[in-house]
Amino acid sequence: MTVRQQAHTPEDISPSTRRLLGPGPSNVHPRVLQAMAKPLLGHLDPEFLEILNGVQRALRQLFSTQNRFTLPLSATGSAGMEACLVNLLEADDRVVIGVNGVFGGRMADVAARAGAKVTRVEAEWGLPLDEEAMVAAIRSEMPKVVAFVHAETSTGVCQDPQAIASAAREAGALVVLDCVTSLAGIPVELDRWGIDAAYSGSQKCLSCSPGLSPVSFSERALHAVATRSTPVQSWYLDVGLLDGYYGGERVYHHTAPISAIYGLAEGLALVSEEGMEKRAGRHREAAAHLIESLAPLGFSPLVPPEHRLPMLTTLRLPESVAKQGEANVRRNLLQRHGIEVGSGLGTLAGQVWRVGLMGENARPESVDALRKALESELSSDH
Amino acid sequence: MTVRQQAHTPEDISPSTRRLLGPGPSNVHPRVLQAMAKPLLGHLDPEFLEILNGVQRALRQLFSTQNRFTLPLSATGSAGMEACLVNLLEADDRVVIGVNGVFGGRMADVAARAGAKVTRVEAEWGLPLDEEAMVAAIRSEMPKVVAFVHAETSTGVCQDPQAIASAAREAGALVVLDCVTSLAGIPVELDRWGIDAAYSGSQKCLSCSPGLSPVSFSERALHAVATRSTPVQSWYLDVGLLDGYYGGERVYHHTAPISAIYGLAEGLALVSEEGMEKRAGRHREAAAHLIESLAPLGFSPLVPPEHRLPMLTTLRLPESVAKQGEANVRRNLLQRHGIEVGSGLGTLAGQVWRVGLMGENARPESVDALRKALESELSSDH
Repeated sequence: MTVRQQAHTPEDISPSTRRLLGPGPSNVHPRVLQAMAKPLLGHLDPEFLEILNGVQRALRQLFSTQNRFTLPLSATGSAGMEACLVNLLEADDRVVIGVNGVFGGRMADVAARAGAKVTRVEAEWGLPLDEEAMVAAIRSEMPKVVAFVHAETSTGVCQDPQAIASAAREAGALVVLDCVTSLAGIPVELDRWGIDAAYSGSQKCLSCSPGLSPVSFSERALHAVATRSTPVQSWYLDVGLLDGYYGGERVYHHTAPISAIYGLAEGLALVSEEGMEKRAGRHREAAAHLIESLAPLGFSPLVPPEHRLPMLTTLRLPESVAKQGEANVRRNLLQRHGIEVGSGLGTLAGQVWRVGLMGENARPESVDALRKALESELSSDH
Repeated sequence: MTVRQQAHTPEDISPSTRRLLGPGPSNVHPRVLQAMAKPLLGHLDPEFLEILNGVQRALRQLFSTQNRFTLPLSATGSAGMEACLVNLLEADDRVVIGVNGVFGGRMADVAARAGAKVTRVEAEWGLPLDEEAMVAAIRSEMPKVVAFVHAETSTGVCQDPQAIASAAREAGALVVLDCVTSLAGIPVELDRWGIDAAYSGSQKCLSCSPGLSPVSFSERALHAVATRSTPVQSWYLDVGLLDGYYGGERVYHHTAPISAIYGLAEGLALVSEEGMEKRAGRHREAAAHLIESLAPLGFSPLVPPEHRLPMLTTLRLPESVAKQGEANVRRNLLQRHGIEVGSGLGTLAGQVWRVGLMGENARPESVDALRKALESELSSDH
């Protein structure tokens, strides 16, 4: 190799070892990494379609749904959000959206770009949505769609979907649920809750690499898409076109991301081998261990116990962190200890950290490593 | 593991060995596969951002552009098409689109969904666009955007972009070019040709896994986006929001697909080590060898020599293939010989095959393996 060529070569890929204890991505299991390194099959190869069938079956099981239209969308979780909203909404359709964090706010932005009339029902960041306020808005607006977040990654709040979904169904609305951070960490039960469209991401509790968004649409939702009066504004995310490939006829739409789907298949196999009940327990125990371990250092949870997510804990920062500058402490955690934690977003920026114990990382050793690193960084020597 | 758990486990990932000689994906170099298996960094980790910077620099070089906004979009090439069109077009904007195959037609569909007034300039499939017809349409419509395909994957036709791009620029239009199949196989020179927005895919001549779409926007194009009167209809593909992350401020937008970007970095390193001139020569030689090798079996190229793409050759089928049913022969090539070739699309379905010699596969041994397999399948024994 000549010097000139070396100058044009991108960096070698030899990443430092990290514990990814932020809001995602989480660490990926070695079996998933190895699956992504397998040679490619074509996207119409019967062998690949068999793997894809297995992924679709496993996703139905994880979403607790019979929905035929359940598949890994070829983009990240935010594109899953967009897919749910732009397929179900047409210009001037009314939509009620619960907003108690960044991702509820993002839903409102996406829906407005689709030309929908958006009613935002706001709640304080760090608390769940007010069910009565949501129900009242649903009954007064009689919207086509009601959308909210199951696990708000910006605050660490868990929303019980049942009362809001029931009220929405009674009002004849379709229900959209953001399950980006909940899926594979706590139970998700689309059919029992009456959810019509849901989306998630591969890089949180599934512990796969980012790049895929598992989505699921009920028959009611598919009917709403099929009876639109205008085409879906996005060709790439058009559920009718996607159904031509993923629905079984295997009509070419776009080239499916083969390696990412290999990885997801392996990630779903790991979930299945562990069992969802055990996996949810592991997430609960890790969160309890985190709160207990960091309390002596002065970290306290933002969210009341009954509304806390296990896989994403928002912690108010102690004086010892503020004194050094919270961004400096995060940088030192990363550079000296190889541990990534997440900053606060929006109104919580600078006030909290977001500690993710997702998927593979929901284990006591993640917490113990973080506690030890923090003890070192926050000792009087610094 | 219990039997019950085994029943829920997706298939193991142990794909058969394939020569992917269709329209993409192509075979991925082992170095790229190994890069995708490296442990994850977070999407805001300085080490990852350094890799991303390297990818962006290498993409600028490959697109022959100074465009600051040059990045791998987190979705496949079709989403790159959508990104270019929905950012530049608003409702009722005029757009002239050249249509001589599936992908020109797809552009027209995507633009119409954005509410644009679409003028299609059609040409026969298997021939390039008629430059005079394109120029006449541009001068009569005076559109905001002119869009066409550099390398039409459905027909194997190469379009010289220069005359059309010049006429578009003279008329004050922005020029969008589909480089999905051309990038890294033949020279792409955005700045010299005067292209304002271009998109490609990772899975063709770059020989990476599908899932990323390299895109590039000129300053003129960015200015057009910044001065829109309405928000971009897609939140996920909004160039202004993407620029917040990829432009250097590293504001969180969505979670970048870490492993896929590792793979692309390695794929771009391979292109750089080989050099684009040598790589283009390798594609030309492989195509010539293909046409020469399959001529004795009765396969003849659809496209006149001066308009042929090297990486994707559309071959009219001989009687010996038609007799067995072309789909049967393709299935036998796959199942008995591990070789995938592509079917004809649209008006060419059943009449042609599309043989891709892209990236890693643009080598004489690919051709020789295909010839040998075809000789066996088409011998009188069958």
